[in-house]
Amino acid sequence: MVNVALTITTKEEVGVLDEITKVISAFGFNISYANLYVGIDTGVLNIELENVENLDEFIEELYKIDFVLDIEKHSTLKDIFGKRIIIIGGGAQVSKVAAGAIIEADRHNIRGEHISVDTIPLVGEDNIADAVEAISRLSRVGALVLAGSLMGGRITEAVRAVKKERDLLVISLNMPGSVTSEADLIVTDPTQAGVMAVMAIADTAVFDVARLKGNNKF
Amino acid sequence: MVNVALTITTKEEVGVLDEITKVISAFGFNISYANLYVGIDTGVLNIELENVENLDEFIEELYKIDFVLDIEKHSTLKDIFGKRIIIIGGGAQVSKVAAGAIIEADRHNIRGEHISVDTIPLVGEDNIADAVEAISRLSRVGALVLAGSLMGGRITEAVRAVKKERDLLVISLNMPGSVTSEADLIVTDPTQAGVMAVMAIADTAVFDVARLKGNNKF
Repeated sequence: MVNVALTITTKEEVGVLDEITKVISAFGFNISYANLYVGIDTGVLNIELENVENLDEFIEELYKIDFVLDIEKHSTLKDIFGKRIIIIGGGAQVSKVAAGAIIEADRHNIRGEHISVDTIPLVGEDNIADAVEAISRLSRVGALVLAGSLMGGRITEAVRAVKKERDLLVISLNMPGSVTSEADLIVTDPTQAGVMAVMAIADTAVFDVARLKGNNKF
Repeated sequence: MVNVALTITTKEEVGVLDEITKVISAFGFNISYANLYVGIDTGVLNIELENVENLDEFIEELYKIDFVLDIEKHSTLKDIFGKRIIIIGGGAQVSKVAAGAIIEADRHNIRGEHISVDTIPLVGEDNIADAVEAISRLSRVGALVLAGSLMGGRITEAVRAVKKERDLLVISLNMPGSVTSEADLIVTDPTQAGVMAVMAIADTAVFDVARLKGNNKF
């Protein structure tokens, strides 16, 4: 049972995806990611499948669909970009948390891991709450770092909602606002927050937040 | 014609996606993003659709599928996270380019834009080349910054290939290796490289690489 990424080029026709997903369903694979571009006379479907068996047989079936022109196999986005740390907040803090996270990710990626650090500086309760909520619709997210100076209200509710839906580590900078009450870890120094986020999700690190037994403020 | 994001919760059954895409094809929408989680007895499909008309009618049709339990509407990932700068290279340089990009993105996002800065520190020609190639399978990418000290070979080929497939601005740090020959912009200072990447894709900036007329090394 492996995960594979395929790029399927097709003659642009309504129902392309319809036909292709019929084959996927027949093989009982899960789709972890899909992305479709429709050009003037060709369409390109990038798709990632989980629990794949009989790949050759599957690809053979796809080629039987008359508007399938080409199928390319790739490593999955998980193999290439790995687990993601997401950093959301104000520009000053996001940049400092990111610096810590990127340099620590570098130290793990050198040892063969693939950890990426994705960031967005945002202003305003609603913008930040929407971004936090959206994390439950992203794949490969291991940890969220809230890198602001004042976060509460809708943001706190969004963190609570995402933690219900996903197994997600939440690190918050030490700040006023109710959001720290939903964080697994509260860290005062932004560089440290970034480093700890990576250590917590890295396979090559021993740091385990569960072992802190409630002593979670640094 | 609008873009919408839907979270569709279904009873876990093989063929769920099959049925749902049949409806999508019938309405002639494009899928820009899809992500499927299959739980023990429910499945969750996160899907983003382009050029949507008659949304209410479409949702009505989806509810007619007997295993569709719930449909939630959200803003799209593009509305929330916006255009992405991708920074790939060594930890030291990636962190410095990211700092410039994040602080500049903050200045634009404050004015209502949504620009995110996604990074991965990687080591080795193949790892970096795979990451560059994979950009053509990601959505919302506006610019790539190559933040290394020596890049050529497969990495240069990957940049050439991605530029053929995507309208992508490529900024390279000033470094030895053939990769600079494929860059739209060669920048010596990493902070400057990050700031320029954001300025080049921001709606609220006047910087246009096309206007440099070949004078592209700073």
